[in-house]
Amino acid sequence: MARKSIQFKIHGATADVVGKTHGLTPKEWSALSREIAGIVGRLNRERDRTPYRDVPHRQGLSQLGAVLASARAKAGLFDDVVILGIGGSALGLTALKTALRTPYWNSLPREKRQGLPRVWVMDNVDPDEFATMLDLIDPKRTLVNVISKSGSTAETVSQFLLVMELLESCVGKRNLRRHVVVTTDARAGLLRPLVNEMGLESFVVPDGVGGRFSVMTPVGTFPAAMIGIDVRALLAGTRAMDKRCTAGRLDDNPAAAGAAVQIGLYRKGKTMSVMMPYAAALRDVADWYRQLWAESLGKTTAGGEQVGPTPIKALGVTDQHSQVQLYRDGPNDKVFTILSVDRFGCTLPLPQAPAGLGGADYLEGRTMKDLLKAEERATIWALAAVSKRPTTQIVLPRADAWNVGGLLYMLMVETSIAGAMLGINTYDQPGVEAGKEAARALMGVHGDISSPTAKGLPAEAASYEGLRRLIDDADV
Amino acid sequence: MARKSIQFKIHGATADVVGKTHGLTPKEWSALSREIAGIVGRLNRERDRTPYRDVPHRQGLSQLGAVLASARAKAGLFDDVVILGIGGSALGLTALKTALRTPYWNSLPREKRQGLPRVWVMDNVDPDEFATMLDLIDPKRTLVNVISKSGSTAETVSQFLLVMELLESCVGKRNLRRHVVVTTDARAGLLRPLVNEMGLESFVVPDGVGGRFSVMTPVGTFPAAMIGIDVRALLAGTRAMDKRCTAGRLDDNPAAAGAAVQIGLYRKGKTMSVMMPYAAALRDVADWYRQLWAESLGKTTAGGEQVGPTPIKALGVTDQHSQVQLYRDGPNDKVFTILSVDRFGCTLPLPQAPAGLGGADYLEGRTMKDLLKAEERATIWALAAVSKRPTTQIVLPRADAWNVGGLLYMLMVETSIAGAMLGINTYDQPGVEAGKEAARALMGVHGDISSPTAKGLPAEAASYEGLRRLIDDADV
Repeated sequence: MARKSIQFKIHGATADVVGKTHGLTPKEWSALSREIAGIVGRLNRERDRTPYRDVPHRQGLSQLGAVLASARAKAGLFDDVVILGIGGSALGLTALKTALRTPYWNSLPREKRQGLPRVWVMDNVDPDEFATMLDLIDPKRTLVNVISKSGSTAETVSQFLLVMELLESCVGKRNLRRHVVVTTDARAGLLRPLVNEMGLESFVVPDGVGGRFSVMTPVGTFPAAMIGIDVRALLAGTRAMDKRCTAGRLDDNPAAAGAAVQIGLYRKGKTMSVMMPYAAALRDVADWYRQLWAESLGKTTAGGEQVGPTPIKALGVTDQHSQVQLYRDGPNDKVFTILSVDRFGCTLPLPQAPAGLGGADYLEGRTMKDLLKAEERATIWALAAVSKRPTTQIVLPRADAWNVGGLLYMLMVETSIAGAMLGINTYDQPGVEAGKEAARALMGVHGDISSPTAKGLPAEAASYEGLRRLIDDADV
Repeated sequence: MARKSIQFKIHGATADVVGKTHGLTPKEWSALSREIAGIVGRLNRERDRTPYRDVPHRQGLSQLGAVLASARAKAGLFDDVVILGIGGSALGLTALKTALRTPYWNSLPREKRQGLPRVWVMDNVDPDEFATMLDLIDPKRTLVNVISKSGSTAETVSQFLLVMELLESCVGKRNLRRHVVVTTDARAGLLRPLVNEMGLESFVVPDGVGGRFSVMTPVGTFPAAMIGIDVRALLAGTRAMDKRCTAGRLDDNPAAAGAAVQIGLYRKGKTMSVMMPYAAALRDVADWYRQLWAESLGKTTAGGEQVGPTPIKALGVTDQHSQVQLYRDGPNDKVFTILSVDRFGCTLPLPQAPAGLGGADYLEGRTMKDLLKAEERATIWALAAVSKRPTTQIVLPRADAWNVGGLLYMLMVETSIAGAMLGINTYDQPGVEAGKEAARALMGVHGDISSPTAKGLPAEAASYEGLRRLIDDADV
């Protein structure tokens, strides 16, 4: 029997359920099918232009042996793994960790972690938060994995300087290299010379794979393997999904169907896309997707049009008591994606209510999982059938490595298709350059800035000194 | 010298900086001033219609002695406090905990917590997550605080049943009451009879104070006191802010100025409101605000108009590598609120870069805090001055109890003013009723449903059986 795989349900986003204004009509669906068949065909022919699609095959497998061997050799030697990285270098691992270990991993006693280390994903430069983390770990029993393709990310470099100083003072310069793994570009970038100089262990971020598409490279797989996640199953699930994502027909290709709903409805005025998992395990998948979607699709087109749906992460059932009021009675300007899981690790049967607690009889004999699934179905029904809010559902048979790998990959291909539909470059991020240069100017960097306008800066910002003056004058 | 207080900076949201299309002109500001002066005057005269405004005064103080005495008596007796609550019963405490303890509180060894307990805020019904928590705690050393005004919240009741069963099996029925504190309505609701029957310790959610306005009642203050948060300072900061929030002039009243910017720009097409703290401590304030704002303002007016800006939580600097690309180059449909903190607990001086690591010289002699503040200022400048995105800034002298209390209170009053401007009922949440009833139907509840249409249900849903059929037929 074929393995049960991820299902994508779109009925709640069709005109049939939510009406013509808010849902896709059969005619619109046909037009989208034709448009997307062309895009999928092109993506299939030009796979070398999207190197992330090679990751579950050649690229990921070529480093897999080294990743697993290193993680195996280090298992038991470390109590803590500290990840220094930001954006795409942090969000993928966090998604995997929450989904495939538990949201409480770091709080589990060591024996319930099978002796595997705690993980601290440091994706900010808040001094109080960072100092607390440094205070929590025993440097002698800590492995640091610094992740930056360019090696020039100010946040990551500043963290790295502090951690290196602490490690050196605790384990000595000679032993430093046993505590550091670097994940960076194969040849270029500022970290590679340090790797060579100090003889550090390192992994490669493959050429052309941007941070937000890098979760299945050693960026995600090495730290995942350190906490016992089944990386082989992750890549196998990814490969199986890759096959589905090459299909030209929307019915056979969940990434294509997802892009059709999302961009089809964006064109009809749904400016926001809410992803709402009904499983704590998938909570940070929504956060990872939020970066993938925003940084890939929030762009200005060649024609000067500013486009891109705004991704919003939510959480079922929690946000029924926070956001659903707005989602149902506020403006009908969102498309909803419910992430569901069929099987959980346990169900938690509910006991009889104690004497004195009325109105809880209906819970007896049911399980906490029953309640979760009833709330999920009730919310989908209330959103789509009653309030006419377009709502789709992605159903995972269970939140295991095979399916989570498939889910992340499906969302990456959906993003590629959506970017092509919007007519933008899905793989760059020009909008973050100006802020980076401005921060450097405020940190006291001197000298010329090459091609400021290409970086989105005013032409007067030809030097860091000039840029600093501009910022001072702006008075914001 | 007067204590330094919270500052609210709006220049980046004015036409002066972002232009007439995206910012408020002096003429618009004058009109908003007149409109809001009237609203503030009415709110001042009718304080008894918004009972939350009495909380920092009579209501909060009347229970403060009992809250502090109970927390003091229990300190040292428990290793873990488990909070059972959802929505407003959970988000306020989580905001206080992250802001005034640390994001890593539960991971600190006991001595670094001054012997105070860990806290688990359970605001979901995911069976795997809940089972992991139950497995983590030692019931003999655990205090449970169940929080529900009505006592009928299915999520909280189901959690409570499971925890009571576990406690009873570990400590015995006789000792159960030492491990349970109930926060609920003074007289009504399903938990009050249980309190009386079992002789449980309890606190009161004051009449007319909804969950999202309840953080300064025992809903927030009792668990906050259990982890050593200075609840007196919290309420004092709240009272000081209350005084500022009665001023009729926008320049003197930060809540009024906030509402002016938010709703003034919502009327000009900014459908989303992004709150982006540049301090890990304030991360969950943004999450609390997201509920306050969405559930209060996401409404259908008496005239049938669906209104309400969509609140979005973000985090600086992390989201510079995730959302800023969209924020700057995507559609100009958002207003930004940056939360800033002037003083941190530490600064973290950055050491010299090791040989082999080029391009990091500019960091030497600076601190991690310098970098955080440079990134913050650079982002505000890039958003407002370069990309013409309306951006305001709320500056806290530091993230201590006095200021965090003031901040939360200011945002509550801002919400009241915004609701009046939108012409909706700020304090109800009719849009969640239909989903609740649908979930009950799917859980097998029998019998009639009174006034289904008032609950947003179709008229056919006159019984749970009928409602269940409707849901089955909808096929979503």
